[in-house]
Order: sequence, then C-alpha cells, then structure tokens
Amino acid sequence: MKARGLIVAISGPSGVGKGTVLAKVEEIMEKADPGSVGHSISVTTRAPRGQEKDGVEYYFRTKEEFEQMIKDGRIVEYDQYVDNYYGTPSEPLVEMMDKGQDILFDITIEGSLALDRKFGDDAVTIFILPPSMEELENRLRGRGTETEEKITKRLEQAKAEIRRAGEFEYIITNDDLDKAAGEVLAIITAEKLKASKNIRTAKELE
Amino acid sequence: MKARGLIVAISGPSGVGKGTVLAKVEEIMEKADPGSVGHSISVTTRAPRGQEKDGVEYYFRTKEEFEQMIKDGRIVEYDQYVDNYYGTPSEPLVEMMDKGQDILFDITIEGSLALDRKFGDDAVTIFILPPSMEELENRLRGRGTETEEKITKRLEQAKAEIRRAGEFEYIITNDDLDKAAGEVLAIITAEKLKASKNIRTAKELE
Repeated sequence: MKARGLIVAISGPSGVGKGTVLAKVEEIMEKADPGSVGHSISVTTRAPRGQEKDGVEYYFRTKEEFEQMIKDGRIVEYDQYVDNYYGTPSEPLVEMMDKGQDILFDITIEGSLALDRKFGDDAVTIFILPPSMEELENRLRGRGTETEEKITKRLEQAKAEIRRAGEFEYIITNDDLDKAAGEVLAIITAEKLKASKNIRTAKELE
Repeated sequence: MKARGLIVAISGPSGVGKGTVLAKVEEIMEKADPGSVGHSISVTTRAPRGQEKDGVEYYFRTKEEFEQMIKDGRIVEYDQYVDNYYGTPSEPLVEMMDKGQDILFDITIEGSLALDRKFGDDAVTIFILPPSMEELENRLRGRGTETEEKITKRLEQAKAEIRRAGEFEYIITNDDLDKAAGEVLAIITAEKLKASKNIRTAKELE
C-alpha cells in the first residue's frame, strides 16, 4: 500500500532560491516515482485571462463564493492582492494525499504555518536560509531588476523573516542546490517514517 | 562548524537484520566522511580475557566501581548477564558528540528508550520491523543454529517487542537492505536539520 502523501511547505526570504530547490526536489521525486508529486491549484476571485480554464490555472470563484469557502473552513490560507483573493483550497490537498501524492509549496511564512495548523502530522514546514546575508544581497543584485532602494527593503524584510525561522519544524541552508534538495528529500523520507504514521504496519504483524 | 553528533539507537526483534543495516549505514557514512562515526565502548565488571585492554574492548571496572557509576548517573543503561554488569557510560558519548561524531547503537528496547531519556534531542530512536512474521521466521530458521523450541520462543518474543514499536520515534521495515540503510541515513540527516538544532545559524544571520 502506498504511504499517505505529505504537504511540504517551504518558506524563506526572497532570493534564497526556494523555487530552484523545489524544482530540483520535484524533478528527483518524479524521476523516481512518476506522478508522486501533486500540484495545488489556487482559488481566486480575479477574472480568467485569455485561455485560462477553471480548475487548470486557478479555480475561479466570485468574491461571495470565496468568502463562503473561508467561513466553511475550506480555504487553508489566503491573501489579498489588488482587491482579489488568492487562496489554497483544502479538499484537493486531502484527495491528493489520499492517493499518496506529496504536495510541495513555495509559500509565505503565514501560509506554511497555516498549512501546518490545518494538517498537523500530514504537513511539514521547512525554512530555507541563505549561506550569509552578503550572499543573499549578491543574489538579489544578480537579478539586475531591482533598484537600490528595493534591495535595501528586501534585505530588511529578509532579516525580519529569518527571525521567524524557529517557528518552522526544520531549517536548512541553501549553500549548494544539490545538497539543499537532498536535505528536503531526506526530511520527506524521515517524516513518512515517524512512528505515528507506521504504527499500523507494526500492528498488522502481530 | 561541524554539526553536533547524534546518538542513533536502533532496536528490533532478533533476526530482523539490525546489525546488517547498521553496518551498511556506517560504511556509507564513513565513506562520505571518514571518522564521522564514533563507537561506544561498554563498561563491564567481568574480568579481561586474553589480550583485552581497558578502554579498547571494554572499560573494566569492579562491581563496586560500576555500582558507584550507576549512582552518579554516569551509566545510561545497563544489563546483567551471568553475575556481571554490562553498561553504556555517558561521558564518552558526550565527548564524541561534541566532536561531531554520530554513534550508532544496536541495542535492546530498554536501552534505546534510556538513551532517548538521557540525551533527548541528541538521540533518535528507530525500531526495525520485519516485512512479515513469515519472513522473520524464515530468517531465524535460515541461521540453521536454532532448535524448533528456540525459534518458537524467539517468535513469541519478537511479537512482544513489535508491540512496543510505537514507543520509538521512527519505524522502518527491513524488506531491502539498501532501502532500510537509506532510510536510517535520511532520518539522521533530517534530525540534524530540526529547527531546534539550527536556530543559532538563523540568529547568526541577523
């Protein structure tokens, strides 16, 4: 029987390389076991653009429907941008986990903590640190798209976020992509081996 | 700076292959980082045999000295066989962990739990299950050294031990040596990434 899937919520300051690490993790997981990674589709109140289809890029809902979903506890975490809501619906996550799929999230600190509160043992939270603040600054500058003012602001925000790393279950340092991806994979493997998740296997042997 | 070492306490029924899994884990760890595995030397009250030297095969102590060590809280766990004590002294473990060495134990259930009580976050407990009771029976028979009566007795004892798997932090199934060794290694990696052990790294970035 396939083990129940896990929600892997990863946060960290802008520029730390969360997206790259997660892409590498997904690549390795999909190579080892195709279809093992599920993808969360957000719910939004903004209008579809171009060829966007409901249930593909987003679930498109009215403001009233979205607010009802919040009230019903069907939205795990959400945010507002430019008058529109964007949120994570909980039911698709449960369905994917029931099928044994793991779901990787590159998400805000509040988003990670909300997933952890909602899913407990079925979620793991990981905070990614830069090797140093200098390195983070270099990476932000390396993008070449940010003004000096914006870089200063992002570094201040990074420090504020790093102060909250202790609210996560695991902390890793992204000084090497392969190492960081390997550490995320080790955490996923270990989490699934926790006794609370395998006590049934032991009971079946008796 | 090298991360603090970890005590890895592994228990499981006789015949489950704990020793083989641990040997494989140690081989991989030593290949990746020579000297990274420390070895616990037991204290005993039995007399040295042949060329045995104090501090090599065992620490040899008198019964009075051993009992004083117990009273002083310097013995983490111990057992008695044929009128002699055999125990694990705590100070060498602390010294090895301070140097960043991990210490692997193939140990009784009570021994694992005692190490966990004494060292808390610095110890991890893993219970190894057989793939099935039939497979365990085959392995015990495969040794070719046990009487029918002894095999029946060992299987009864195995069931009693498996009932206690839930007292461990992790449970793995030894259906494949490489997979089981990889899982132990993933657990060791993940344990060292726990936020409680890395909060200082985050603080140093601020």
